[in-house]
Amino acid sequence: MSSSDVLIHLHQKAINLLQEDAYKIEKLIEVQMENLATRKCPLYEEVLDTQIYGFSREIDFAIRAGLVAEVIGKEIISKLERNLAQLYEAMNNKV
Amino acid sequence: MSSSDVLIHLHQKAINLLQEDAYKIEKLIEVQMENLATRKCPLYEEVLDTQIYGFSREIDFAIRAGLVAEVIGKEIISKLERNLAQLYEAMNNKV
Repeated sequence: MSSSDVLIHLHQKAINLLQEDAYKIEKLIEVQMENLATRKCPLYEEVLDTQIYGFSREIDFAIRAGLVAEVIGKEIISKLERNLAQLYEAMNNKV
Repeated sequence: MSSSDVLIHLHQKAINLLQEDAYKIEKLIEVQMENLATRKCPLYEEVLDTQIYGFSREIDFAIRAGLVAEVIGKEIISKLERNLAQLYEAMNNKV
């Protein structure tokens, strides 16, 4: 493989990993969206916040390590944060 | 640069970034070690735990992305966890 092939492979692998991790958090958000009645479980918010914090550290590292363009990394995390904000809004409307 | 040079460069960069991040947490632990009297601040433990959690996510990502060997990544995080355990032990002895 040429050096540019190696780089493309590593970048693609990094993006795939980040998207898999984002997908897992998306799923957590969706499950909670579908179960708005179970607001009683405050751990859910705690878990989501922790997951998103950990994920933002992964993204930040991937950007600094030169594996992912800053604009792409920030977009992945913003999308998750928007979904989380929608979940919290829906939860508050439910109260 | 050849493809192996590119890989060596990326691996080295990843290790450097992780060591910088580990160093920042080490510093937080040291500061608290030197100020055992200020146990009153429970936020310190919270901050350290959160920092180490975020850092473990970085390490995990670096391993999965193929930037850092698993044994090296695990060693960096174990070292931090040992230091943190020492801090907590010292804090408990102080109480």
